[in-house]
Amino acid sequence: MYYLVIRQFARSLRNLDAVLEKTIKHAEARKFDVNNFIQARLFPDMLPFVAQVRIACDVAKTSAALLSGKEPPKHEDNETTVSDLRGRIAKCMAYLDSFTAADFEKTSAQTLVQLPNRPGKALYAEEYLLARQFPNFYFHVTTAYDLLRHGGVELGKGDYLGHLAFVEV
Amino acid sequence: MYYLVIRQFARSLRNLDAVLEKTIKHAEARKFDVNNFIQARLFPDMLPFVAQVRIACDVAKTSAALLSGKEPPKHEDNETTVSDLRGRIAKCMAYLDSFTAADFEKTSAQTLVQLPNRPGKALYAEEYLLARQFPNFYFHVTTAYDLLRHGGVELGKGDYLGHLAFVEV
Repeated sequence: MYYLVIRQFARSLRNLDAVLEKTIKHAEARKFDVNNFIQARLFPDMLPFVAQVRIACDVAKTSAALLSGKEPPKHEDNETTVSDLRGRIAKCMAYLDSFTAADFEKTSAQTLVQLPNRPGKALYAEEYLLARQFPNFYFHVTTAYDLLRHGGVELGKGDYLGHLAFVEV
Repeated sequence: MYYLVIRQFARSLRNLDAVLEKTIKHAEARKFDVNNFIQARLFPDMLPFVAQVRIACDVAKTSAALLSGKEPPKHEDNETTVSDLRGRIAKCMAYLDSFTAADFEKTSAQTLVQLPNRPGKALYAEEYLLARQFPNFYFHVTTAYDLLRHGGVELGKGDYLGHLAFVEV
């Protein structure tokens, strides 16, 4: 399950990257600066678009690292453009692509994951992945998508879910 | 994995119900009709709040049914108030609570899930759950949350994630 979910995070980040590419084209067609989205918020005390994309990346990379007993790489929060954010996604996807199923072979329901930002606190691997990281990842991906939809970019559920491996029956 | 995810959907619906309860109190305190949120949209061609909650429920119940070889129950789309939506969530949670791990014992990576709205199309169970249902469920839960935050309701990530079973280490 752990490796499957990490692969799913990578797929969703690829979909998010395609959404950013569409957003760049949309802004070009409408003749406005696509980077006006960088600080877009749905409410003044919510995190801006730039942070939604960064956190989605960080949840994915941290999940892969902590569930396989590795140290997550540090990626600087210095993006100021949508192109920068595509670079952030590419770095994260390259990191996720470095994992194989074997990295998670020792991870079980009994594995405790210590949370870097919560000293003295841990979650069992299943709880960490299914109750915290998976919902948290999609929270930030969806909020990034919602900000773009709210800003008029033409996107649909197909952009969010991406290609699904349908079988003819 | 299948039963674990269904339990997680139930937990997230309980969190969403608590968010709706907070929203009712917020509207009372601010002296406006909470049902003004029912038709709220982030953009004119997006689905309204009422549909975001309904679809989250339907994705959860359909996942449980199809992954265990059952027929999903039909719940009428007739909610016009936030209280009605809490009733819809309660019906869905009661249905999810009727499942046990044993219901998913025969479900494996080789299980094909036929999609009710896509005649002739099926997905393998893992793809159905991890690539379609899980992201789709959190898409609608998050968009419901985002609509409320956009409308000024005071909510935080803790409301979305709910209680996590932390272990002291």
